[in-house]
Amino acid sequence: MSDLERLSFSLEGPLYKRLKLLCRASGYSNRSEFIRDLIRARLVGREWELDQEAVGTITIVYDHHVPQLNEKLTDLQHDNHSMILATTHVHLEHDRCLEVILVRGRAGRIRKIADDLRRQRGVLHGNLSMSSTGRNLA
Amino acid sequence: MSDLERLSFSLEGPLYKRLKLLCRASGYSNRSEFIRDLIRARLVGREWELDQEAVGTITIVYDHHVPQLNEKLTDLQHDNHSMILATTHVHLEHDRCLEVILVRGRAGRIRKIADDLRRQRGVLHGNLSMSSTGRNLA
Amino acid sequence: MSDLERLSFSLEGPLYKRLKLLCRASGYSNRSEFIRDLIRARLVGREWELDQEAVGTITIVYDHHVPQLNEKLTDLQHDNHSMILATTHVHLEHDRCLEVILVRGRAGRIRKIADDLRRQRGVLHGNLSMSSTGRNLA
Amino acid sequence: MSDLERLSFSLEGPLYKRLKLLCRASGYSNRSEFIRDLIRARLVGREWELDQEAVGTITIVYDHHVPQLNEKLTDLQHDNHSMILATTHVHLEHDRCLEVILVRGRAGRIRKIADDLRRQRGVLHGNLSMSSTGRNLA
Repeated sequence: MSDLERLSFSLEGPLYKRLKLLCRASGYSNRSEFIRDLIRARLVGREWELDQEAVGTITIVYDHHVPQLNEKLTDLQHDNHSMILATTHVHLEHDRCLEVILVRGRAGRIRKIADDLRRQRGVLHGNLSMSSTGRNLA
Repeated sequence: MSDLERLSFSLEGPLYKRLKLLCRASGYSNRSEFIRDLIRARLVGREWELDQEAVGTITIVYDHHVPQLNEKLTDLQHDNHSMILATTHVHLEHDRCLEVILVRGRAGRIRKIADDLRRQRGVLHGNLSMSSTGRNLA
Repeated sequence: MSDLERLSFSLEGPLYKRLKLLCRASGYSNRSEFIRDLIRARLVGREWELDQEAVGTITIVYDHHVPQLNEKLTDLQHDNHSMILATTHVHLEHDRCLEVILVRGRAGRIRKIADDLRRQRGVLHGNLSMSSTGRNLA
Repeated sequence: MSDLERLSFSLEGPLYKRLKLLCRASGYSNRSEFIRDLIRARLVGREWELDQEAVGTITIVYDHHVPQLNEKLTDLQHDNHSMILATTHVHLEHDRCLEVILVRGRAGRIRKIADDLRRQRGVLHGNLSMSSTGRNLA
């Protein structure tokens, strides 16, 4: 890549030592990569704050014996089909299913889909993981 | 189900009104389900605090052109294959991939896998969503 | 109080048992109080989401030897004096101070003050704790 | 200070531009300070994860008319007097008080005090803000 920028900054000695320990403890062999990842994590936070285009992973655990739940969950996904990238289903136990729904779109819309899924009767737990298209991170 | 328990509790009038508004604003038609979901969310938090059996969804965004990254990500998953339920891959853009890895096992082990994946060079963002087998939630 | 409302809801047996264990583990002797606290915590979350009147506690740790930092921190607080309820100062070590600033006002305004304080050079750490006037919680 | 260390790292052009925008949007005039603050925030997270010496700010909102609540809150604080740096009290309304308790000690001990305070009947909301002695941050 021809467009690398070099950035340098100073750190007091003790903070520098702490940073080295922290990198190692976090399993990073490369200090630059560690700092880039700190910056990227903050950038992803901003994408969600500013309701920009984002990627979200919605994880739900549900009891598939609850009447009409399957239909409702499917309907909700179809209502938003243009935003849904993929859905993965795992049979956890006799009664319980795990479903993970990957969504791309405005952050606020993703949140809304997660809320809609999560509150259905029979959905025991629902979680939204805020990720990114990566467009601003490379 | 023969084993339903009835639980009743009192609320001061204004708090009761707030609860009603909150249920409606959250899109719940059923107040009991709302309260059950509050309890379940706390239970899932405990499973993770106490390092119990849990389910985690790891979402990573990465640049698949980074040399050897694919191999490393695959190796890491194979090293933990007994815990990994499923992996879903989405091609986000020309360079960037989204991968979602569903893991079941002790909470601390799931965290470790997430950290290992996230810090690889070329992984632009990594997130862990703490979910549950649902065993304690029904 | 004359205006207590009674609310009752049903729980599947195993979830009921889990709730009892959770209450005990959390040190609550009273199950109703535990559930009321779950509801209250969610209500406070809403106050902040909806940018309503709230109370925030801003904690900063700083090095008071950094030139002009004291003046800047004082100025920032005076600019918002009508919202600031109280400030407590603790001398942590020879160089470092802890300051805790209690703020009442619109949630967004409190966030802004926290950000303004936190980014000053010499402020080593800043944190905002989202609390409430309690008006909706009783 | 004689012991400044200089650290330099490279960033791809687009990520560099994003970093500049993020600094500006966050109100930082100084990019180095922004990065140092990212590192410090992560270090504070580690202090709490590893149960090291930390500083915590506990904010509680309570109804001081609840019988014996004042005594219980005072007792709890006296039981931990060696860790408590200062307490600030604000009369929010006729019934409600805000109390902010600054605690220094092992992270796990601070959490325990926060939990003990928060679950008292009459305490409407309790929050723990995880801060630092700043020893590792300068």
